[in-house]
Amino acid sequence: MKTEEIETPALVVDLDKFELNMKTMSQAARQYGIKLRPHAKAHKSPNIGLAQIAGGAIGICCQKVSEAEIFIDAGIKDVLLTNELVDPRKLDRLAALTRLATITVCVDHASQVRALSKAAVERKTEIGVLVEVDVGQRRCGTRPDASVVELARQIQASPGLQFLGLQAYHGTAQHMRSPDARRATIAEVAAIVRDVKTLLAEQGFQCTVIAGGGTGTFYLESQSTEFTEIQPGSYVFLDADYAKNEPEPAVPTFAQSLHVLTTVISIGAHGNPVLDAGYKALAVDSGLPSIADRKAFIAKMSDEHSVIQDNGTPSLQPGDRVVLTPSHIDPTVNLHDWYVGVRHGRVEVLWPIAARGPGL
Amino acid sequence: MKTEEIETPALVVDLDKFELNMKTMSQAARQYGIKLRPHAKAHKSPNIGLAQIAGGAIGICCQKVSEAEIFIDAGIKDVLLTNELVDPRKLDRLAALTRLATITVCVDHASQVRALSKAAVERKTEIGVLVEVDVGQRRCGTRPDASVVELARQIQASPGLQFLGLQAYHGTAQHMRSPDARRATIAEVAAIVRDVKTLLAEQGFQCTVIAGGGTGTFYLESQSTEFTEIQPGSYVFLDADYAKNEPEPAVPTFAQSLHVLTTVISIGAHGNPVLDAGYKALAVDSGLPSIADRKAFIAKMSDEHSVIQDNGTPSLQPGDRVVLTPSHIDPTVNLHDWYVGVRHGRVEVLWPIAARGPGL
Repeated sequence: MKTEEIETPALVVDLDKFELNMKTMSQAARQYGIKLRPHAKAHKSPNIGLAQIAGGAIGICCQKVSEAEIFIDAGIKDVLLTNELVDPRKLDRLAALTRLATITVCVDHASQVRALSKAAVERKTEIGVLVEVDVGQRRCGTRPDASVVELARQIQASPGLQFLGLQAYHGTAQHMRSPDARRATIAEVAAIVRDVKTLLAEQGFQCTVIAGGGTGTFYLESQSTEFTEIQPGSYVFLDADYAKNEPEPAVPTFAQSLHVLTTVISIGAHGNPVLDAGYKALAVDSGLPSIADRKAFIAKMSDEHSVIQDNGTPSLQPGDRVVLTPSHIDPTVNLHDWYVGVRHGRVEVLWPIAARGPGL
Repeated sequence: MKTEEIETPALVVDLDKFELNMKTMSQAARQYGIKLRPHAKAHKSPNIGLAQIAGGAIGICCQKVSEAEIFIDAGIKDVLLTNELVDPRKLDRLAALTRLATITVCVDHASQVRALSKAAVERKTEIGVLVEVDVGQRRCGTRPDASVVELARQIQASPGLQFLGLQAYHGTAQHMRSPDARRATIAEVAAIVRDVKTLLAEQGFQCTVIAGGGTGTFYLESQSTEFTEIQPGSYVFLDADYAKNEPEPAVPTFAQSLHVLTTVISIGAHGNPVLDAGYKALAVDSGLPSIADRKAFIAKMSDEHSVIQDNGTPSLQPGDRVVLTPSHIDPTVNLHDWYVGVRHGRVEVLWPIAARGPGL
């Protein structure tokens, strides 16, 4: 099938660029001497997860137990759940997964540790645990002080649990525009991690895992020498928001490999072309999508439509294709059911977005 | 299963309120003497579509051919596609559906009419056609002038097509806050419809269908006497944005029957509870969701998390449930795979959101 025959709206992957992004990150991790554990929340596709493992990743990250179930079912053997769990049903499902894969999960509260230990004991298994530290994101994570030591002590004293180290991810740093701001922020993160490791060491706790780093800052966590593994997700595709980051010289960059292919279905009464894709095909939490293949912009969107402001030259007509760059990859991918992988103008693969959904 | 046992995040329907909303709209349409054709793009659920038909609706509206296929497969016999189509593959699929149901579709451009006629002829069938008129929304729709007559003439001259009337929906009017603003806008819409009908009548074209009206203004289109059918969608659930509309006295109102049930998974380092639902469980195109069951608000969201600003009294703890009201129903429903219908604290039904997705 030719690219022109793809029904729209469609989530289209440029396979050459995608494969280059995969290779660039694998090579970067090797050069920095850091383990790569890509975050599967970005792509939600076992096909891509398995390709990442084949490219040298030590495992993947997931955000939801339902994601871990799907990726492990597809053959992934090592999953870090970079999130907190409290629901006994979810914890039991997580514990059950240890029969099939190495499982590590995050905690930031004593009640999670108690519930997690209970689930591990009931399933007669052992689960690796990272203490998530709030390194500046102000979301999940405990304070970077003695409370980490308390949690480590509780974990070590809890049957079925093994204290492995720290989750220290700074999400907002990923999207800071200036390289200097990112560098300064991750320097602070590294300093926090160093201090917490010292506190832990004083009480006899060694960290074998220090995890963090996303697509915007992975090179900084890698260079800091405090981290053992990085967890970037968006690098496989990139998005319009990441493209706004000013690049750091001499650091690997990634190509926009994913777009939403749309069709002009109408030229409105005011001459504005209307596309067949809206909020149900493109997430707008980080702004409206941009138009990749012509000088024009999206003026407004609704559930199933986007209206183009500048019709440009040559003017768009019903049936014309327009290529959009999503502003934010993860929630845009989550709207679709499959990727259409293209190369040299032809459809080469369809990859189901098997872990799509809000996740349980 | 009790409500407390539902795994989160979950799209939960209060069945008593939902059924009341369904009944209120059916009764209103009967009282206004107007046909009710609810928009299925809002709920994407055959269970709900069939219940709407059972409650007296003459059929449903869809926005995508893939939606029409799913609803017709479930037994719906009359579908108005309130959208323009240009792709020959989509038009062929639409024409194929006429074997199973009465199909009407919108056009606003000569090229659509040509392609639609070709598809109808190839499938040896007849498709009903409405000319969509831009009545102020500035999206799809032709100008309300002689161009409507030209399109009607082209439709009537095209084999396989039957001119039925006008689609005259004003989407932005649905969310105007003051009753006076909505009344003034729909009065203009009705005047435009009247003028276009006169233009058409002068050339011998009768409109048997004038369609429009959503949850925010359906009573105005109904009262105008220009319309033959209304197409509200959101009334079955409502959302936080519709709740901001000041109600018109003596006009039926609807109850918030749908929420997203979430769980506190963490109390962050700064004391802010973090919920297990973010952009992948709640659409934010119309703002952040509100908290339904306590005095607090969502300070920020990310892909899988929402952070609560005010911890209130009693303070939230990990494992506590929090009920969110989506700001915008349609794209929020579109993120989920099923509804959990509850009554008196117990789960009564699971309805698949079978037409979920960007739609082809």
